[in-house]
Amino acid sequence: MDKKALYNLSYGVFMLGVRAGERKNGCITNTCIQVANSPTRIAISVINANYTCELLKESGLFTLSVLDKTVTFETIKHFGLQSGRNVDKLADISLPEDENGIPYLGWQCCSVLSCKVVSSQDLGSHTLFIAEVVDAKVLSDRAPLTYADYQNEVKPKPEKKQEDRKIVGWRCRICNYYYEGSELPKEFSCPLCGHGPEDFEPVYA
Amino acid sequence: MDKKALYNLSYGVFMLGVRAGERKNGCITNTCIQVANSPTRIAISVINANYTCELLKESGLFTLSVLDKTVTFETIKHFGLQSGRNVDKLADISLPEDENGIPYLGWQCCSVLSCKVVSSQDLGSHTLFIAEVVDAKVLSDRAPLTYADYQNEVKPKPEKKQEDRKIVGWRCRICNYYYEGSELPKEFSCPLCGHGPEDFEPVYA
Repeated sequence: MDKKALYNLSYGVFMLGVRAGERKNGCITNTCIQVANSPTRIAISVINANYTCELLKESGLFTLSVLDKTVTFETIKHFGLQSGRNVDKLADISLPEDENGIPYLGWQCCSVLSCKVVSSQDLGSHTLFIAEVVDAKVLSDRAPLTYADYQNEVKPKPEKKQEDRKIVGWRCRICNYYYEGSELPKEFSCPLCGHGPEDFEPVYA
Repeated sequence: MDKKALYNLSYGVFMLGVRAGERKNGCITNTCIQVANSPTRIAISVINANYTCELLKESGLFTLSVLDKTVTFETIKHFGLQSGRNVDKLADISLPEDENGIPYLGWQCCSVLSCKVVSSQDLGSHTLFIAEVVDAKVLSDRAPLTYADYQNEVKPKPEKKQEDRKIVGWRCRICNYYYEGSELPKEFSCPLCGHGPEDFEPVYA
């Protein structure tokens, strides 16, 4: 089985907002589909280890903010790359709330759905929630962000590893002597200061 | 509730292949997400009234061909806009089959998944199937088609209705006389041939 085949499934990107009592949280997720239209039901899948999942199991209510193409990596990082167990994500950000008092993202979004869980199924790593959409609003006419957009346009590209780059020469750290060539001979010693290969650093194209 | 808010959910487009005994069929669907990675599970939602859904409930096995951006409207029309109850969709098209003998689309696709249903839930209009991915293959390095791509680039645009267009004049069908103006007076008669409004046709901007 080539698991890369699953990378070709298409997804949106969402901020999943939850609240249990006074504990509020939000995380970034990419798995939501409408699964029935009569009555209107959606399905979302949430990682069991997530704090958001814990609060959602407690309250059974959530919002789903559909991120649009103007979303910044800062937003993704704030809600998606830290845990509500360690940080109060809503401490310094004032989010709007739906009629149930559940926070949602009021910007960088094109829609928000207010949902009530009708059933859930533990699937090991994740829990699948089926939910009734109790309210839905269009927030902007901007196009939704797809997960592919996120990967290609929002997520910062890792800096090119030095190892991947072409070495064109070596410079002596001691006297600055420059040796032209991709490989420094193993027994090389600097013609100026006499130091060996361990004191040379690569120079990249 | 503004149901248009749900249009901002993002989806892929798939050919769902099924077989129950010698009855084989395939339909077009846009709802599939991976819902767990350990073990690897996907969820699909299928309209209860579909013949494909009937066969799937019988066999519990399916393939999911992930359509790529080269898909033609002919393919969508063949598998998506007619029912296997009325037409044998595989009569004139020879499709490859997976190890379980389930047909899949071997072209205009970037991945194919072979799946086994582990649970299902009737949601009224649709049934939600949770399935184990038992095999998965990458078929091409082309990008997957999103449902938005389908709507914007594959689905033919409806021809602009005559009614929506602006009438700038009327032409007499009998003698070709041209009357300038959006409305032809009710009692009008052609100054050249004497015919009435029933013999005039609109001229659009």
